[in-house]
Formats: sequence, C-alpha cells, structure tokens
Amino acid sequence: MDETNLDRGNIFACLPADRNTEHFDTLARFGDGRLERIVSFGQCSPEGFWYDQDHSEWVLVLRGHAKLEVEGFPGPIALSSGDYINFTAHTRHRVAWTTPEEPTIWLAIHY
Amino acid sequence: MDETNLDRGNIFACLPADRNTEHFDTLARFGDGRLERIVSFGQCSPEGFWYDQDHSEWVLVLRGHAKLEVEGFPGPIALSSGDYINFTAHTRHRVAWTTPEEPTIWLAIHY
Repeated sequence: MDETNLDRGNIFACLPADRNTEHFDTLARFGDGRLERIVSFGQCSPEGFWYDQDHSEWVLVLRGHAKLEVEGFPGPIALSSGDYINFTAHTRHRVAWTTPEEPTIWLAIHY
Repeated sequence: MDETNLDRGNIFACLPADRNTEHFDTLARFGDGRLERIVSFGQCSPEGFWYDQDHSEWVLVLRGHAKLEVEGFPGPIALSSGDYINFTAHTRHRVAWTTPEEPTIWLAIHY
C-alpha cells in the first residue's frame, strides 16, 4: 500500500476560495448514507425555507459559529466547536445564521 | 418539541475522568453502522495487535495527537486536529501512539 491508496486528508485543509456560496463536499459514502463537509461563509437558509428530509442527519460544528432553528423548539440553537445535533427524518430545521467572521466548518452524516 | 426531545451535545464535553483506559461512546446508530467518540489518554494498541475489521471505518482526530500504523504503509501516520483516514474493511491498522499530554478525541464512523 502506498500513499495514493490510503484515503486520508485534513478536514480543515483546502478551504474553498469562493466565500459567496456554501460548499458541500462528500468525503465518504456508505450504504444509503454519506459523509459530507460543509463550509459556510455567513450563509443561512433562505427566509421561510425549512429542511424537511426523508433521511436522518447528524451534524457537528468543527469550527466557526452557527444558529439553527428547529420547528417547535423554542428559540435558535447556537452551535460552536464540538456542538452536534441529530435530526431524525422530517425534523424540520433551518440554518438561521452563520458567522461572517470566519468559515464555519460542519461535518454532516446523512443516513 | 422541548429540549429533552432533541438529541444534541458537545463532543468535547463530559470527558471521562479515568485516564487509565480508552473510552468508547456510541453517539448514534444508523443501519448497520454507528458513530462513536473515542477518548484516549496515551493508550495505544497492544504490541503486535492489529485491527482487522469486517466493516469499514472512517476516523477523524478532533483534538490531541496520535500515530497510526497501516499494514504495508511505510512508517507511522501522524494525526492531529482535523486529520482523517478511511479504512476499508480488512485494512489492517493499529494505534501506535497517542499523546499522554492531553486527551486525544476521535470521531469514528463504523459502516
């Protein structure tokens, strides 16, 4: 086995240069699921938009700061480094805010 | 939905007090897979021991420092914050070292 055969990297490396959009990169796929890195530069969900997914999603903030809204949950949920949430399928949620000060880096497991 | 219905936490919180052993906590289960937090306090795999798993594992170091050995791969692989490796099933590997200076916190996806 040489270097090229081992799938490895650093999740904080190769940050996208374009800060005008969120970036979604699939890091691995498994069965019906996938592992994704998301990089936000101050983006949030459009006004009135809610994610309503057929699958579950476990999401972790690695760097940066975000606020999520979850339908029926009182107030936005502030997330910083290490904070995670598990959304079961059809838990309606939206990204209310991400900091414009630095990249917010998320790890999401869609399963 | 109230606070108790939303599965969330911080992956750096509630670190175990017992530094004499590694700690494995399942954070979520999905299909045949699971998501695990591992906390090491200087532990490594026993001499001559190799993981040889029937399933694949994606592993990420969140904090701390570790060195992994992978069969057939030249030299140990040093991992620090943000470094990840994907081990396909039966990729033989072992933990050669983790730092005794601080907890090493891993996120592992067994899939």
